[in-house]
Amino acid sequence: MPVNLSEPNPLHLFPIAGVCIGVTEAGIRKAGRKDLTVFLLDEGTTVGGVFTQNRFCAAPVQISRQHLASGASVRALLINTGNANAGTGVDGLERAQRSCHFLAQKLGVEQHQILPFSTGVIMEPLPVERIEAGLDAAIADARPDNWLRAAHGIMTTDTVPKAMGAQVQIAGITVSITGISKGAGMIRPNMATMLGFIATDACVSPSVMQELAMELAEGSFNRVTVDGDTSTNDSLLVIASNKADHPVIQSLSSVEGQALKHAMLNVARDLAQAIVRDGEGATKFITIRVQGGRDADECRKVAYAIAHSPLVKTAFFASDPNLGRILAAVGYAGINDLDQTRIDLFLDDVHVATRGGRNPAYREEDGQRVMKQSEIAVTVDLGRGDAFDTVWTCDFSHEYVTINADYRS
Amino acid sequence: MPVNLSEPNPLHLFPIAGVCIGVTEAGIRKAGRKDLTVFLLDEGTTVGGVFTQNRFCAAPVQISRQHLASGASVRALLINTGNANAGTGVDGLERAQRSCHFLAQKLGVEQHQILPFSTGVIMEPLPVERIEAGLDAAIADARPDNWLRAAHGIMTTDTVPKAMGAQVQIAGITVSITGISKGAGMIRPNMATMLGFIATDACVSPSVMQELAMELAEGSFNRVTVDGDTSTNDSLLVIASNKADHPVIQSLSSVEGQALKHAMLNVARDLAQAIVRDGEGATKFITIRVQGGRDADECRKVAYAIAHSPLVKTAFFASDPNLGRILAAVGYAGINDLDQTRIDLFLDDVHVATRGGRNPAYREEDGQRVMKQSEIAVTVDLGRGDAFDTVWTCDFSHEYVTINADYRS
Repeated sequence: MPVNLSEPNPLHLFPIAGVCIGVTEAGIRKAGRKDLTVFLLDEGTTVGGVFTQNRFCAAPVQISRQHLASGASVRALLINTGNANAGTGVDGLERAQRSCHFLAQKLGVEQHQILPFSTGVIMEPLPVERIEAGLDAAIADARPDNWLRAAHGIMTTDTVPKAMGAQVQIAGITVSITGISKGAGMIRPNMATMLGFIATDACVSPSVMQELAMELAEGSFNRVTVDGDTSTNDSLLVIASNKADHPVIQSLSSVEGQALKHAMLNVARDLAQAIVRDGEGATKFITIRVQGGRDADECRKVAYAIAHSPLVKTAFFASDPNLGRILAAVGYAGINDLDQTRIDLFLDDVHVATRGGRNPAYREEDGQRVMKQSEIAVTVDLGRGDAFDTVWTCDFSHEYVTINADYRS
Repeated sequence: MPVNLSEPNPLHLFPIAGVCIGVTEAGIRKAGRKDLTVFLLDEGTTVGGVFTQNRFCAAPVQISRQHLASGASVRALLINTGNANAGTGVDGLERAQRSCHFLAQKLGVEQHQILPFSTGVIMEPLPVERIEAGLDAAIADARPDNWLRAAHGIMTTDTVPKAMGAQVQIAGITVSITGISKGAGMIRPNMATMLGFIATDACVSPSVMQELAMELAEGSFNRVTVDGDTSTNDSLLVIASNKADHPVIQSLSSVEGQALKHAMLNVARDLAQAIVRDGEGATKFITIRVQGGRDADECRKVAYAIAHSPLVKTAFFASDPNLGRILAAVGYAGINDLDQTRIDLFLDDVHVATRGGRNPAYREEDGQRVMKQSEIAVTVDLGRGDAFDTVWTCDFSHEYVTINADYRS
């Protein structure tokens, strides 16, 4: 059961001029599932992308990186579920290239103008012939108002499709932003999440798109974790179709650049948090804010130590205010000169620990009350500076074990 | 159910001359449990200790470190379960000191000749008065052949007491080694495990004891993990009563030093592996060997990434050869210049992946056969050097969630 996450409202998923999306069933792993999605991008579209830092990155990640680096304008995205095409060696690279080749032929563009994305089981050969066979249906299905179908089309262990939209004024012109994401397990993005695609009709210079993609990833997908496992296939692609009628944004620090970035960051953050809310087996959504650090890096390190501790996560699942486990995680997070006597811990507004020990005014029933909520904020104050950072995660339940002991069967 | 771990054989638990152990029920947390253990050490005993690197280390860890650093000869250990005296601030330090004071008075020694050890729930005040009230019974119970009772006396979520013994010839004299340990969860020792005590009647110079303790920890407790949570209370104490009739060992690199260290390391490793075999919810014992690294550090980093991955651990639980999850963990372990095309993966003697891709000769039924075993060896070859390291861990089951969602209740 996802945590306070409902089906996307189709009215908020704005079509983006210049971006058509088609979805079909190609039978890549199982029959009767939408598993092949294409994005067709008009000429003049600019894109930026960030990809997993996992050194065992999948073949499509390697190919997408190459194609982006070639500087060619991107004209289509080719996305499949059911197979990650990771841990597949040279053969996997060839199969990813061949799938791009087939789509490029049908669209009359160059192979390196296609970016491939895959998600699913690792270490199985990609069934390229099934992808090829499905392309015509996917292309025939392509239209601008297909975002919700696309959100369905990229799901794997997700239980809810993830899609968000927003509108913002840029130089007096209303521009639209719509994005989708997927992911529920193997979620500890390091540059991006499993898969995320965010498009706008705003006009953004190609030179700015990579910076925009990185900033969006940093403020959203790079701040969530489900199980601490960084995927081989994480990819976030940011698309600007440049169809809106305003001057091209040349810098993110301009007024217009800031406005667009802020609006897109809200969409990205909602999409990233949706992944946590739909995290495998999740019953609670936990916000971990670490403040009072010397720099944001050490705050993030502590936040992730708490977010990844199986003991902390099972205590949340049990609604058990066994909060010493949080202190233990703070202690092993890797800050070597940490002084435990300066540390404070809050659960929502309940002051649990002060100066490294139990707060004399803390009453177990107050901790218990907060632990029973479906949304919980943990705040740790390190008492050694002014920096802070925030990470979002979920709890660890029986259902997580069930899902991951059964995933392939 | 512990994995291939049976009750210790009392015949192998050699009494150590000069070391008497007493155990009693002090009612520290629950009634009817042996929860208070004292080690009484004859004059002339030398000790070395290593403690958790968790910056939120418990009060008894801080006090034991201080007392060891004072250079005073250690005359007793005071061990309680049911309460970790961690996350307890200044008050916790005072309570730990007071418990040492009471025992010192009864034994007629100095307070700083006592080392305190606690394990149990974090962030609760230590009930010093109950410890004081239990001391007479513990002292009255003290005898050299009490190791098995002591192994029982230090258990928390352990299901099997952990005790091992060995004998070895030093300069023609038979010396004995006996040790106990406890721990099942919050196990990712960083210098030592939850609690481990290993004693010998061999004669070892005080100047060598610390080095001996560190080498034993490095080769045993610092190579196991259950859940990746480094405890606040990890402590390993190594005791030499100096009662055997051989010249004092002045250096670990001498023939006698090597012989003793080797024999003690076998005991330490068995004790450390016993903790994994009895890991919370464990159904399988996994040996992860990473070879072909540039140095042992990077091999260990990769081994721990695999050992801590919830996805890998649940796949072991399910006996599902979903081995791409292991490759993914190798990829995010933190070796930045890792070349995935040089990596090989073996499950026991089954060659699963070669050059970063599926081995063409690999058959799923072979992987399946190994995954069903209760003891599994994973070997990863990084293909970039000659270094190697090994880590021992267990799988991740429903039972783990149940245990940790219920621990305090």
